[in-house]
Amino acid sequence: MTLPPQTPAQASELLDPAQQPQDIPERLARQIGFIAEVDRLKTVLRLSPLLAADRRENDAEHSWHLALMVLVLAEYANEPVDVERTLKLVLVHDLVEIHAGDTCLFDDVGKSDQAEREQAAADRLFALLTKDQEEEFRALWDEFEARRTPEARFAKAMDRLQPLILNFGNQGGTWRTPGVTEKVVRERTSVIGEGSRELWSYTEKMLALGAERGWIARD
Amino acid sequence: MTLPPQTPAQASELLDPAQQPQDIPERLARQIGFIAEVDRLKTVLRLSPLLAADRRENDAEHSWHLALMVLVLAEYANEPVDVERTLKLVLVHDLVEIHAGDTCLFDDVGKSDQAEREQAAADRLFALLTKDQEEEFRALWDEFEARRTPEARFAKAMDRLQPLILNFGNQGGTWRTPGVTEKVVRERTSVIGEGSRELWSYTEKMLALGAERGWIARD
Repeated sequence: MTLPPQTPAQASELLDPAQQPQDIPERLARQIGFIAEVDRLKTVLRLSPLLAADRRENDAEHSWHLALMVLVLAEYANEPVDVERTLKLVLVHDLVEIHAGDTCLFDDVGKSDQAEREQAAADRLFALLTKDQEEEFRALWDEFEARRTPEARFAKAMDRLQPLILNFGNQGGTWRTPGVTEKVVRERTSVIGEGSRELWSYTEKMLALGAERGWIARD
Repeated sequence: MTLPPQTPAQASELLDPAQQPQDIPERLARQIGFIAEVDRLKTVLRLSPLLAADRRENDAEHSWHLALMVLVLAEYANEPVDVERTLKLVLVHDLVEIHAGDTCLFDDVGKSDQAEREQAAADRLFALLTKDQEEEFRALWDEFEARRTPEARFAKAMDRLQPLILNFGNQGGTWRTPGVTEKVVRERTSVIGEGSRELWSYTEKMLALGAERGWIARD
């Protein structure tokens, strides 16, 4: 299923420039307004369960976790990656879900209009910034989605690997979704190999062990 | 008050190498174990209230928010900063709270042994990694704490500014802690000016407006 944002799209921002001190440059007021607005990412729930507590993860936590994974695992990228750029990609990649909601990897219905919903969300959210930064953030989001750079391929690998670690540590997690089998999980996560063959090899062993232990349905 | 971690310090890790597939390099198994272990940061609650929901923020969400602020606000640093390094500092700066808990800026009792608790926590947490990465992460955490580089000063400015934005947008938040006045808030956040005079100027205007509206006690 596609999860709607916990705070539905609203007409006004959380802290727009009109609510801030008035004698400051417009650019800074818009930047602070954007920073306040993205607080909403903390309310967008994913289906993945945490390892450390009995609740689901939200997009802000997930994005932080991916960034930390980049710091730890960058050495496994198939091609050398610019770490700064890769960090920017993972920090920004889920922002559009503030308005578009999270779409689970195993949700075929939600995925049918996901691209359209997310494009509209990107238009709306990044327009809070002034033109140069609007374009910069939009370009980062586009780059992540397109996976045409080494950084984007590695960032996407982190995005796929992270919930697998949560599922494995939880002895199942979203692998227990009806209809999901080892083959389905493999197909939808094999993109990890485009970013890192070594981490894909690790993933394959983890999935095999998960299936052996009964945490993922056999095909 | 100092908030204890929601999950108390435990004897075993969330996903230690023994629980993972066995035919993989030890280095990678330790890295994945570390990545699983830091999931605990999502359970360390801060006192700051979110803007987008009626609950408190956790350290993982806070760390992501600081990283995003670096992307948006780096142009205001007093000295040019290496964005990659600044991102690393904010992503890592609160990790020790997994074992040491969060200490509120206005908690004088908790602050008395904060350094000692956090040093012990750093020793324990970073030792999950192999030596080179243990040293790298430890150095990042030390650099943030010491504030001797432009990157650390700007990272610290983000760490102080972010909860102010949450408090302002919440018409008070932790400013309403007994004993806290405009002067106390100014004193404990003035370090923002070491990282960015322009953002400190913004902060001063925000605090004056907050006091004028009755969200912070007058001295």
